[in-house]
Amino acid sequence: MTAQAPIRIYELAGADPEVRFSPHCWKARMALAHKGLEAEGIPWRFTEKAEIAFSGQGLVPVMVDRGDVVFDSWRIAEYLEAHYPERPSLFGGEMGRAMSRFINGWADTTVMPAIARIIVLDIHDRVHEKDRDYFRASREKRFGMALEEVVADREKRLADLCQALTPLRHMLQHQPFICGDAPAYADYCAFGMFMWIRCISPVEALEPSDAVHAWRERLLDAFGGFARRARTTGPRGN
Amino acid sequence: MTAQAPIRIYELAGADPEVRFSPHCWKARMALAHKGLEAEGIPWRFTEKAEIAFSGQGLVPVMVDRGDVVFDSWRIAEYLEAHYPERPSLFGGEMGRAMSRFINGWADTTVMPAIARIIVLDIHDRVHEKDRDYFRASREKRFGMALEEVVADREKRLADLCQALTPLRHMLQHQPFICGDAPAYADYCAFGMFMWIRCISPVEALEPSDAVHAWRERLLDAFGGFARRARTTGPRGN
Repeated sequence: MTAQAPIRIYELAGADPEVRFSPHCWKARMALAHKGLEAEGIPWRFTEKAEIAFSGQGLVPVMVDRGDVVFDSWRIAEYLEAHYPERPSLFGGEMGRAMSRFINGWADTTVMPAIARIIVLDIHDRVHEKDRDYFRASREKRFGMALEEVVADREKRLADLCQALTPLRHMLQHQPFICGDAPAYADYCAFGMFMWIRCISPVEALEPSDAVHAWRERLLDAFGGFARRARTTGPRGN
Repeated sequence: MTAQAPIRIYELAGADPEVRFSPHCWKARMALAHKGLEAEGIPWRFTEKAEIAFSGQGLVPVMVDRGDVVFDSWRIAEYLEAHYPERPSLFGGEMGRAMSRFINGWADTTVMPAIARIIVLDIHDRVHEKDRDYFRASREKRFGMALEEVVADREKRLADLCQALTPLRHMLQHQPFICGDAPAYADYCAFGMFMWIRCISPVEALEPSDAVHAWRERLLDAFGGFARRARTTGPRGN
């Protein structure tokens, strides 16, 4: 293995720059870890559009690898699979790549909205002060109500999340990971959602008796505890 | 290719024995078609437990291939992949097999219950007369209410199904099938649910403008229109 020029990845950060909480950035970080690639994470805030303008758009993750600029977590995974084919596969072939895309969409359209309704006020309270007005305005427009109203009925929101996780829980009756005996990209797509909660919110969304809890523990332990070591927020940021 | 002894598969049938409506049997029929295997479908009714007692359990599909007896649609797919490895793959490898299991569970736990709440009374009206008491009693116990109550608010039930299909619709923005450029087992897991509706109910659950509708059309056309030729029920069975 030749020495690699360090990969850089711009990641959404909280008021505490070491808190990196974006679920999509976590998908990319786990994909890099799966490939055994070191990467330097660069903290980035919602309103720092100029810092990633070189990517031609305004969202993270943005990865820079030996002069290649890649944005969007899905495109980053495809890039890593194509450029590091000799390292462990993220998808397990073309059909697996396609199914991973479906499962990524399942996580984004089913699990992510359920979690957002639990933690959106926690996020607001823990992003950098300069991001707060932008965050509140954009999210209140999306939800059509005040953030305080979105999260008001936490028990109901937790029950909705529990329900949204049914397919994951069902699968865990048969195998330890979405991708089989070992995790791969489809697992990271779902796991990123739980790193979102873990890093930015004091909420524990899973019962210890839930099979999804044990799956999450296995992923926190993966790659020598890479995700478990991530900085999590205190009870209140800033 | 050597001549095959005919594969036999016991399939749930309606009052009209040519109406074969079980979503799980359709997963198995599409898996057989994918492998290019001819199979003789044998009509079976809910209460005909004795006819499949040789399988050691009481549910269909049950497949008999050259003396091997295999029940459960997932086990049939695994059997076909293992015993006919030279034919087109259902899973695309081990990781794909694992992801297919997740997607099968998504269809069973998310799409199937949403459809059941639309068509359960249609099923009751179209199963064989000898099955009706069993069907009503077992399903009313499951739902905790009369079948007529389950299906009372059809507009709401159709909206719930539309919502449950969000991950499929999202994926279809990027690729024509769950398994990529061509369908495979994960597609059949979801498609079986739509054959369930098509064969036993007069309801049209999808808007023509829905991307899921176009995906379903592509699967109806697959294998020379194999699924499209299936007998569908009239407005009222028996």
